[in-house]
Amino acid sequence: MENGAGNGAAAAVAAWNFAPNDALLSLTGLSVRGVLGRVKAGMVEDAGAGARPVVPLGHGDPSAFPCYRTAPEAVDAVASALHSGECNSYASSVGLEPARRSISQYLSRDLPYELSADDVYLTSGCTQAIEVISSVLARPGANILLPRPGYLFYEARAVFNSMEARYFDLVPERGWEVDIDNLRAVADKNTVAMVIVNPGNPCGNVYTYEHLAKIAESARELGIFVIADEVYAHLTFGERKFVPMGVFGSVAPVLTLGSISKRWVVPGWRLGWIVTNDPNGVFHKTKVADSIKSYLDISSDPVTFVQGAIPQLIGNTKEEFFNKTIEVLRQTADICWEKLKGISCITCPSKPEGSMFVMVKLDLSCLQDIKDDMDFCCQLAKEELVVVLPGCAVGYKNWLRITFAIAPYSLEDGLDRLKSFCLRHSKPKDVV
Amino acid sequence: MENGAGNGAAAAVAAWNFAPNDALLSLTGLSVRGVLGRVKAGMVEDAGAGARPVVPLGHGDPSAFPCYRTAPEAVDAVASALHSGECNSYASSVGLEPARRSISQYLSRDLPYELSADDVYLTSGCTQAIEVISSVLARPGANILLPRPGYLFYEARAVFNSMEARYFDLVPERGWEVDIDNLRAVADKNTVAMVIVNPGNPCGNVYTYEHLAKIAESARELGIFVIADEVYAHLTFGERKFVPMGVFGSVAPVLTLGSISKRWVVPGWRLGWIVTNDPNGVFHKTKVADSIKSYLDISSDPVTFVQGAIPQLIGNTKEEFFNKTIEVLRQTADICWEKLKGISCITCPSKPEGSMFVMVKLDLSCLQDIKDDMDFCCQLAKEELVVVLPGCAVGYKNWLRITFAIAPYSLEDGLDRLKSFCLRHSKPKDVV
Repeated sequence: MENGAGNGAAAAVAAWNFAPNDALLSLTGLSVRGVLGRVKAGMVEDAGAGARPVVPLGHGDPSAFPCYRTAPEAVDAVASALHSGECNSYASSVGLEPARRSISQYLSRDLPYELSADDVYLTSGCTQAIEVISSVLARPGANILLPRPGYLFYEARAVFNSMEARYFDLVPERGWEVDIDNLRAVADKNTVAMVIVNPGNPCGNVYTYEHLAKIAESARELGIFVIADEVYAHLTFGERKFVPMGVFGSVAPVLTLGSISKRWVVPGWRLGWIVTNDPNGVFHKTKVADSIKSYLDISSDPVTFVQGAIPQLIGNTKEEFFNKTIEVLRQTADICWEKLKGISCITCPSKPEGSMFVMVKLDLSCLQDIKDDMDFCCQLAKEELVVVLPGCAVGYKNWLRITFAIAPYSLEDGLDRLKSFCLRHSKPKDVV
Repeated sequence: MENGAGNGAAAAVAAWNFAPNDALLSLTGLSVRGVLGRVKAGMVEDAGAGARPVVPLGHGDPSAFPCYRTAPEAVDAVASALHSGECNSYASSVGLEPARRSISQYLSRDLPYELSADDVYLTSGCTQAIEVISSVLARPGANILLPRPGYLFYEARAVFNSMEARYFDLVPERGWEVDIDNLRAVADKNTVAMVIVNPGNPCGNVYTYEHLAKIAESARELGIFVIADEVYAHLTFGERKFVPMGVFGSVAPVLTLGSISKRWVVPGWRLGWIVTNDPNGVFHKTKVADSIKSYLDISSDPVTFVQGAIPQLIGNTKEEFFNKTIEVLRQTADICWEKLKGISCITCPSKPEGSMFVMVKLDLSCLQDIKDDMDFCCQLAKEELVVVLPGCAVGYKNWLRITFAIAPYSLEDGLDRLKSFCLRHSKPKDVV
């Protein structure tokens, strides 16, 4: 029998029992990196002396810029756990106890009650936290309520688990608050949970205590859990301070998702968590907690020595580091707000007060040769080497999500190029 | 409106729209750590001076023992990537290119053709590799063929993705070779793939070139992919050398799963891979490769600085380190084989030649007050503080999986305690 290498390719394919899963293949379109990959596909980087650098306003990951370099105490904590040789083993599926205890104490500082280590489940970044929650809550016929605009990854994971994703609106004119009437209208008896993201990605909003209280009351009346995505916790630089949704855990049970990725500016370290904020013990009674454990039993864990570093990382990081990051974000948010005012085909409904993003509206009627937001971003990347996320990637057609969390000089450069691009593509009447 | 804390617990539960997913909850029983958790549940550790230590013969993770300490070059490689500050960002979803290139070259040494970086997809340990493969191959009505005895995690992931798991037998009398007739008998037109584990977990077998060739031919005739779990690659200490299944990639397309966990003794570092061993390009034509990428787009990645360390880790680790590990494993496999011969109610069909495990048969007819393998392991843990995995956890009722990959003195101690336990529980006629 010949060994296959000699057979025709077509014959070889036909012999294998595999039909591609189109639903799975289409999920790429729901991921930020999938969409950014398409935006960057036609971009050819400059070469040689004086070449323009690419300006990355697409992704929320400033860690490559020196002004956002993580705290030396954080690096030391991980290096020390690595060198100890005591964190090379598998961890338990819920995570190492000292790390969970340390996170429970860290989060309890901002809560009216004390969390315990058992309320904390470690995950491989917030990405896996969303995967776990989605796998645990999905069942035939169930639906989950997601904010629009929002991070479509939630939809991708819901769809993958055969759970319906429904959207409720955020209101740009009201600081991207949840449209509570709309939320109630889309919920039904098969709704298991709603997601809120605060500080907001992609909108840069920070919700008030009063608004969060209203959301909790609504969740309670609807009988649904609240999933609070607080990956950007404490990254606020406006008037409003961050209030964790867990404050309202006794009104409605809250699953808080968080990570060290953003506050410590180390998304590549992949350490996140799911926390049950639930003084009434609803997650235990409904076996949500047991289901999380079961799913973690069949999932990969965060790196053990990163888990082992957590008590030292949280305990030793100085306030100055956090303050420095906030200062740079305040400065870049200001630059972004001012520069965007000078671009006529772009409208920014409100100044960002938290996270690393702002949503802006594109006025296509002022532009020529631009079909939509995706087309805008592809042409911008090609002509100006500036990468911006099209609104379609966050369910908001013909808007853009702009990251201001890069170095100030680079942000100014990128926004200047964005302006040149818009001027160059303006319809003649607008140029005059 | 009162805030919920004042409401009765029963009322609070009734209000939430959530029915536990029993199928998910039951998956814990299919995970090694879930089963070991039950085995250890009744164990009370000794305290005070002269306390007996727990002997962990249940898990394949020797990293806590000094004689299995990982290579200093590996630690240096990770520390250097961590301190560089250049690996704090998100990686691309398939993994950093230098790491993938380095792994492709490392694996190509043992192949008759060259892999490219594009054949390699990085995962968070082999656990996530199995999750990815299972998610990619699953479709309604499909089935996957798994070895019995085997690692039930494959079944857990198949079931979670609504794919049927079917079993084919390994033959203890023939060095745990695949029963090819049985394999053919269980396959049908809905079979998408078969899994082989070589070197074998839980059996400690190492397959010959000829046997692997036979498996490849069978897969070709059946039109199914081969998933080769080679996490224990190169951990062989008998007559037979490790042959990668990828050698037969032109006979049948092979997805090879591997990691640094076992050869470098760092399971907690969570760096694994999926490799397409497929000179005919079947995985591209059938979109398996695209599907893997899509799934990785919505999954968490391995830690970026561990990815960044891979070229240096692979390039700098000295042969002496590998040889030292193999020497200790050879020694402990010998101890295990000799000591087990002296325990009358236990039969070991063949001496392990690879991996870290051996499967032994329990003769319950010699024992009193022992119901089955699970009961045996629970009582053993309670009375002797020796932890062994019951065969039910690998689909082989009334057998045991014993890990010999611990320190030699500790292994001797553990097997002596196992013998005492068996003597103490033997039926009177057997004692005489």
